[in-house]
Amino acid sequence: MKKMMAIAFGCMIGIFGLVYAAGTVKPAPNGIELPSDYKDWRIISSSHREDNKTLRVILGNNEAIKAARAGKTNPWPDGSILGKLVWKDETHPRWDTAIIPGKFVHAEFMVKDSAKYSDTGGWGFARWKGLDQEPYGKDASFVQECFTCHLPVIDNDYVFTRPSSLP
Amino acid sequence: MKKMMAIAFGCMIGIFGLVYAAGTVKPAPNGIELPSDYKDWRIISSSHREDNKTLRVILGNNEAIKAARAGKTNPWPDGSILGKLVWKDETHPRWDTAIIPGKFVHAEFMVKDSAKYSDTGGWGFARWKGLDQEPYGKDASFVQECFTCHLPVIDNDYVFTRPSSLP
Repeated sequence: MKKMMAIAFGCMIGIFGLVYAAGTVKPAPNGIELPSDYKDWRIISSSHREDNKTLRVILGNNEAIKAARAGKTNPWPDGSILGKLVWKDETHPRWDTAIIPGKFVHAEFMVKDSAKYSDTGGWGFARWKGLDQEPYGKDASFVQECFTCHLPVIDNDYVFTRPSSLP
Repeated sequence: MKKMMAIAFGCMIGIFGLVYAAGTVKPAPNGIELPSDYKDWRIISSSHREDNKTLRVILGNNEAIKAARAGKTNPWPDGSILGKLVWKDETHPRWDTAIIPGKFVHAEFMVKDSAKYSDTGGWGFARWKGLDQEPYGKDASFVQECFTCHLPVIDNDYVFTRPSSLP
């Protein structure tokens, strides 16, 4: 009887853990929530950073895609969200001059709201690390690090990404 | 009056040209049509080919995305279509160790239909070149070139792309 109760208890903990893992990605320290559907967003561009050996794909929500396709991205309109998925790069096992995504590093986002985020160029920043999606930053001040890095592209609305050319 | 007729005629030609350009991407020589909504497909992976200096993003239709997320891609199920968008690589003007997409090269597709394309591993191949979307290949035999190149990955259902890890 004790054994069965122990098993049942173990199962309950397991189920609780799964439900918790599926439903609760913590918000970033500045309150930004992980967009629930970001993996279904459409493509804006990609990049390969050879300094930190990462491959990146940049996606956009509907507002961002609309702006990108209309060429109206300086400034990006309020409501636009850019999502960047980042992987460590690695060599393709069957094509040794092809670099492909390896270990997932993080997903990071820029949320355009000119009024709400007026202190940081109209953009709210957030990042979730690894497959565990742990929020980046000890407190809300982490955005200063993001914003400082984006200052060199102030004349491109603080955005490094340029929408890729498409037919 | 002659001048007005000339202007009207010029406008008609212009409008006809636009309608023609918008509506008629020619099918590949093997009859495969360009999927109408491929730019709205979701991401499967990306790559950087350092041999021919191109950046690539690999998208999938709904069937392919479902298979990729379920880890059921060897073999990919019938109905899956993989789309690869290819750009010449170039250096980011503000971040000299970042490689970004430059000139658009082509969009190419693999269409899974085990019965229809049994001669080429169950895959139909097609490619449209450049922003003009000119079909690749002089006649239907062009697929032999595609298939031959994919033979080294016969044990991965003839597919080089491996779906990227995501949370």
